[in-house]
Amino acid sequence: MSVTAAQGFTAAGIAAGIKANGNPDLALVVNNGPRLAAAGVFTSNRVKAAPVRWSEQVLRGGTVSAVVLNSGGANACTGPKGFQDTHATAEKVAQVLGGEHNAGEIAVASTGLIGVLLPMDKLLPGIETAAAALSADGGEDAAVAIKTTDTVHKTATVSQDGWTVGGMAKGAGMLAPGLATMLVVLTTDADLDSATLDKALRDATRTTFDRVDSDGCMSTNDTVLLLASGASGQVPAYEAFAEAVRTVCDDLARQLIGDAEGASKDIRIEVVGAASEQDAVEVGRSIARNNLLKCAIHGEDPNWGRVLSAIGTTRAAFDPDRLNVAINGVWVCKNGSVGEDRDLVSMKDREVRITADLSTGSESAVIWANDLTAEYVHENSAYSS
Amino acid sequence: MSVTAAQGFTAAGIAAGIKANGNPDLALVVNNGPRLAAAGVFTSNRVKAAPVRWSEQVLRGGTVSAVVLNSGGANACTGPKGFQDTHATAEKVAQVLGGEHNAGEIAVASTGLIGVLLPMDKLLPGIETAAAALSADGGEDAAVAIKTTDTVHKTATVSQDGWTVGGMAKGAGMLAPGLATMLVVLTTDADLDSATLDKALRDATRTTFDRVDSDGCMSTNDTVLLLASGASGQVPAYEAFAEAVRTVCDDLARQLIGDAEGASKDIRIEVVGAASEQDAVEVGRSIARNNLLKCAIHGEDPNWGRVLSAIGTTRAAFDPDRLNVAINGVWVCKNGSVGEDRDLVSMKDREVRITADLSTGSESAVIWANDLTAEYVHENSAYSS
Repeated sequence: MSVTAAQGFTAAGIAAGIKANGNPDLALVVNNGPRLAAAGVFTSNRVKAAPVRWSEQVLRGGTVSAVVLNSGGANACTGPKGFQDTHATAEKVAQVLGGEHNAGEIAVASTGLIGVLLPMDKLLPGIETAAAALSADGGEDAAVAIKTTDTVHKTATVSQDGWTVGGMAKGAGMLAPGLATMLVVLTTDADLDSATLDKALRDATRTTFDRVDSDGCMSTNDTVLLLASGASGQVPAYEAFAEAVRTVCDDLARQLIGDAEGASKDIRIEVVGAASEQDAVEVGRSIARNNLLKCAIHGEDPNWGRVLSAIGTTRAAFDPDRLNVAINGVWVCKNGSVGEDRDLVSMKDREVRITADLSTGSESAVIWANDLTAEYVHENSAYSS
Repeated sequence: MSVTAAQGFTAAGIAAGIKANGNPDLALVVNNGPRLAAAGVFTSNRVKAAPVRWSEQVLRGGTVSAVVLNSGGANACTGPKGFQDTHATAEKVAQVLGGEHNAGEIAVASTGLIGVLLPMDKLLPGIETAAAALSADGGEDAAVAIKTTDTVHKTATVSQDGWTVGGMAKGAGMLAPGLATMLVVLTTDADLDSATLDKALRDATRTTFDRVDSDGCMSTNDTVLLLASGASGQVPAYEAFAEAVRTVCDDLARQLIGDAEGASKDIRIEVVGAASEQDAVEVGRSIARNNLLKCAIHGEDPNWGRVLSAIGTTRAAFDPDRLNVAINGVWVCKNGSVGEDRDLVSMKDREVRITADLSTGSESAVIWANDLTAEYVHENSAYSS
């Protein structure tokens, strides 16, 4: 159902020829109103792709009439020409859609290799093709067209009380906080203003996409947009709406982890007993990024010593002699030392749960990560060649 | 030559049976004076192994008469029993060596798996065997006995003006700042006090071992010791001595990178044009730890976009539009965008040089790292199984 699950939206996904292999590579999502409210969050990387810099400006106005997304090229580190290309892309969408559309309300998102200019001779005609293909059930095609190394397209939907939140996501590598290499478009037919959308989106991403840390690498292109058409005529209570957005984000974030490049395990790291949520997140990220631990998990080795050595690199409040660690429910480390028999731990399933108890306070956080595999190395050794 | 290159030292390396495969696993280095001056630096990990906590106390006195080192077990996260075992190890060495020796002047270092108690029934008798094998040319045997996944043992020596600095090192994985999983013992026959040794050692490690970042994982056991016997009767000028210590540390650090687990490339990351040395180090470490870049280097892909995305995650002073990146001397990124033809870059050699120019100031730093390979994954997936 994707971005067209909510009323008031049309979408399309087509092959414009940006990808050499001829796969779909251009998606268009159009908000047909009556509202054109929108909010967005972007990568916190200080090296931002041209479409991110463009879309940040667009979102400042709180109005988005359409989003154009391409795979096959990130348009990052492409200098003034790259920014001109993004601008030309938005202008082309406004021109092709006609009517009230203007480029200043068209968001642009790109994903693919950094440092290569987009083939505008293919992208601009592709926009015409995509516009001609727009339909109220085009959400799936759009979700397919934004894939890069994703093996499956990702969509999620929540409907209740006459209104809907739906969305699509791509992202399989370079997943890390400050958002992953992800492009996400969420749509809703709820009748809400951009300030409400912004609050709900930031509340949701803070504990979902921002806590996905597949490989510790932060992208230049991450973009998460939430568009509201108001077409349902419903004005949901904030809490209900925020929870729906959070549910869709959580679902999509979980799908990103489940399809991460080369991964064989999804690792749920829960830090409990922390003095603050910030401490819990810092410890969770440190565990998530420990390559030795990620290798051990791949080998189904409950190597809790690597968890402790990762905790020890943080500034979080804890006493080394009071740390406890459970792997899949077995407390293999108690009070900073050997706990229950590690042979009791079964790690056959794809999902592996690590619980780190700092025994200091009552705050907690969950970070999702992946294992490190030879397939990850292979996939990322040959990406641009 | 190793730790017995300098006069006044004897050493031994033997197989005590700590390692299941029967390889050498116990080393003993004895300072026969006349001086027993010493300095040490240790892991900055807050989860410290028992021998690190013991040796930190010993070094506070500035006097070390002997160092006992074992491979085959890190004695980290082993609770009060682990600390008692380290204490008993030092007591045993003092007893076996006899004379003026006392446990409070015996440093202990361990390396191997975290979270497992050492087999004291093998280690203690091994100390007797090692003491009986002590000789003035035992340095090589000692260097061999501290190996874990190292494929070669590592030694280095500098001699001049009648005095010598020599040393041995082990370390192949878990290499990261705040020191790597390394055990290093340096010896000198220069006649210097512990305060001078301490200053020279800290000056040296700050720009050598502390800038080795093989896999971003910080150990619980890192220990670097410098012992002076005074046996040469020479009192070198501080600058000459400090330079000799730095040279030996740099040589050993380079050997650690060259033998890192599964690595096929040694990556020399030089950050120039930084506003401060701290900025340069932060940027260098961020580049060094980027898994996607490490994979690209493995694939001999001059993927400068991944360098920029790593720089973008730091707090260092820079303007994204003024960043320049060279790979093996080719400026593939200029002013944050496409520079010279990436096809001009040859990456066939084991050593790969990345230069990141922040175009902000005049400070610089060099960080050494390794590529990420399937062999690294294999080696660390099966370490404890």
